[in-house]
Amino acid sequence: MKKIVIKDSERLIADLSKAYRAVAKQTTIPILTGFHLQFTGESLTITGSDTDNTIQITEENNCSSSKPCAIVVPARIFLDIVRKLPAGEIQLKIGTNEISISAGKSTFEIKTMEADEYPSFPFDDTGVCVEIQASDLANGLRLGYACAVSTTRPTLQGIHIFGKEKAVTFVATDAHRLGTWTVQLEQVIPLPKMILPARAAEEMIKLVEDATDKVTIHCTENTLRMSHQNVTYVSRLISGTYPDTSRVIPTNFSTTFVANRDELVKVLERVSIVSKEGKTNMCRLQVIPSAMPSLLISASQEGMGKVQEEVFISDLEGEMFEMKFSTKYLLDALRHMNVKEVMFHASGVNAPLIIRPTGNEPGFALILPVRSV
Amino acid sequence: MKKIVIKDSERLIADLSKAYRAVAKQTTIPILTGFHLQFTGESLTITGSDTDNTIQITEENNCSSSKPCAIVVPARIFLDIVRKLPAGEIQLKIGTNEISISAGKSTFEIKTMEADEYPSFPFDDTGVCVEIQASDLANGLRLGYACAVSTTRPTLQGIHIFGKEKAVTFVATDAHRLGTWTVQLEQVIPLPKMILPARAAEEMIKLVEDATDKVTIHCTENTLRMSHQNVTYVSRLISGTYPDTSRVIPTNFSTTFVANRDELVKVLERVSIVSKEGKTNMCRLQVIPSAMPSLLISASQEGMGKVQEEVFISDLEGEMFEMKFSTKYLLDALRHMNVKEVMFHASGVNAPLIIRPTGNEPGFALILPVRSV
Repeated sequence: MKKIVIKDSERLIADLSKAYRAVAKQTTIPILTGFHLQFTGESLTITGSDTDNTIQITEENNCSSSKPCAIVVPARIFLDIVRKLPAGEIQLKIGTNEISISAGKSTFEIKTMEADEYPSFPFDDTGVCVEIQASDLANGLRLGYACAVSTTRPTLQGIHIFGKEKAVTFVATDAHRLGTWTVQLEQVIPLPKMILPARAAEEMIKLVEDATDKVTIHCTENTLRMSHQNVTYVSRLISGTYPDTSRVIPTNFSTTFVANRDELVKVLERVSIVSKEGKTNMCRLQVIPSAMPSLLISASQEGMGKVQEEVFISDLEGEMFEMKFSTKYLLDALRHMNVKEVMFHASGVNAPLIIRPTGNEPGFALILPVRSV
Repeated sequence: MKKIVIKDSERLIADLSKAYRAVAKQTTIPILTGFHLQFTGESLTITGSDTDNTIQITEENNCSSSKPCAIVVPARIFLDIVRKLPAGEIQLKIGTNEISISAGKSTFEIKTMEADEYPSFPFDDTGVCVEIQASDLANGLRLGYACAVSTTRPTLQGIHIFGKEKAVTFVATDAHRLGTWTVQLEQVIPLPKMILPARAAEEMIKLVEDATDKVTIHCTENTLRMSHQNVTYVSRLISGTYPDTSRVIPTNFSTTFVANRDELVKVLERVSIVSKEGKTNMCRLQVIPSAMPSLLISASQEGMGKVQEEVFISDLEGEMFEMKFSTKYLLDALRHMNVKEVMFHASGVNAPLIIRPTGNEPGFALILPVRSV
């Protein structure tokens, strides 16, 4: 019987809640439904993992344990118990295959699993390592919106990440639209090419979205590891070769104009009320040249009705155009660009549309038109 | 073509959102998926109904219409459009079978349905009418927790409401537990016996939960109508005879004690982590007499573990007792009683437990024990 005191239950709850995100929810391997807890003196290391994703958190000075020990506790139940106990100190007693958890006049005795049976993970320090500003990393990872959801090409279910000199580039595409973003580093540390699963990108955004400092990325051949403060996240990478997307990006444009991003987002959200009732969620963009040029956006559904919106545009160059696009793809692309103004580049019917932030912003979105039948 | 101006879109959104709750979501009668809108001068009356529940809201001075007219618009889409238009004024143009909705540079044209085909409802002033404090009514209606969810006895799916002299009594039971609550009126206006569907009780609570004034209840043979400010709600009543529940309520008790309600709720929420993993969600209550008597509450699940909690009790009279109850039923009953202390009355193994607020609170909960196998 080993006795352990947790000093502050709220810190424990915060740590467990983070690690819980990686715990397997549906699995045939029961031990993956648990937290691996490692107590060493005043240090507690919590691990949750479904083998594709692992989150490990080390908390110093929030416990005191007489002897080092490790156990695996059922994650959902352990977290529920700790959340509902009175805030403050918690006493743990670890027996052969059970743990007693008590606070005040409340005592739980819960069956545990063998720590030796918990899989070990490659937390080694091999591979290439870069430091990157958390907000820059999150911007790149948010390209996950453009990843394929289900596909016969598994590589498209991830974000392609690669380094070149001082830059790290992120690319995602589902073969109908594409997003790309580039982040500048302080040093020349070229990252190898890798394909990060979209789900891992989502987890990483949640772990760093409030951070204002830097995170460390370690890449080995099969894994990406992100470390930030006392949290380590490891994801398996998608194996395979990412397609060369540079060839599909047009370089000559027949029409170019600038529009206000926030206004466009609101307009497209309204257009979407009508367009989303149809199979293709399609709207029509039409440029009206004049002294005050404007962009008409419209959608209609038989039996329901139609919508027409108009927004002023500026810096119009080139030909008139009228094309149909997925309202959702336009919205996804514009929501990713957290800027005031965006520039549209079109290059003729059936050619892709490019949307990029004005100024020196480091990325763009490409959207294929819906072909008129 | 009739032109109408809505002055303040936010008031319209608030009204539509309330009425939307009664609109049929799944129905074979398309017109019930719409809002019935009746414009008369500066007055707009909005009706949503699935025929069992009807919500009607009359808003004065938020529109100006040239001629009186009525239409039925598709409810979800109309509400979506109005919510997403820029806040402020909205122009409506009503044609033969379509409505144009515009604000700024945004214009929707949506197909409408014939107002003549919308069912009419018994908003007449017959029947008995009482005024009741909104918070008192809500307390009675919250007994819906004890109604049967699915049963071969449809009458148990409702709350039995009846008047006697200056009092209105609410009773609900699912044959395993029962709750009752009595509200005092200012005048002798005996309400007839009626059975209000639990779903209607939920809707009525939502409509009046923020109200600090009185609401008016009108009862006819088949309907209950509640009016509060500019909102009218009508529910069909459940037909049939409610069982006589007075006979099951014990009057002699072998054990009585008082406990703190908030503490008990917290304790039972923790016990529930273990008990809810089993089929019967069962916990054991055990009274321990001593100079400082206490109530032990425990639960265990094979293969998972156990929990034990202790709370101090006071005013203990009578025999020791040890019985098993559904943790959920105990929690439901205690959560309904918004008081500091509750009194428990037990009358022997296999007899129902009674929990009531201390003092002169006007109701109690009765819970049958889980019989030990």
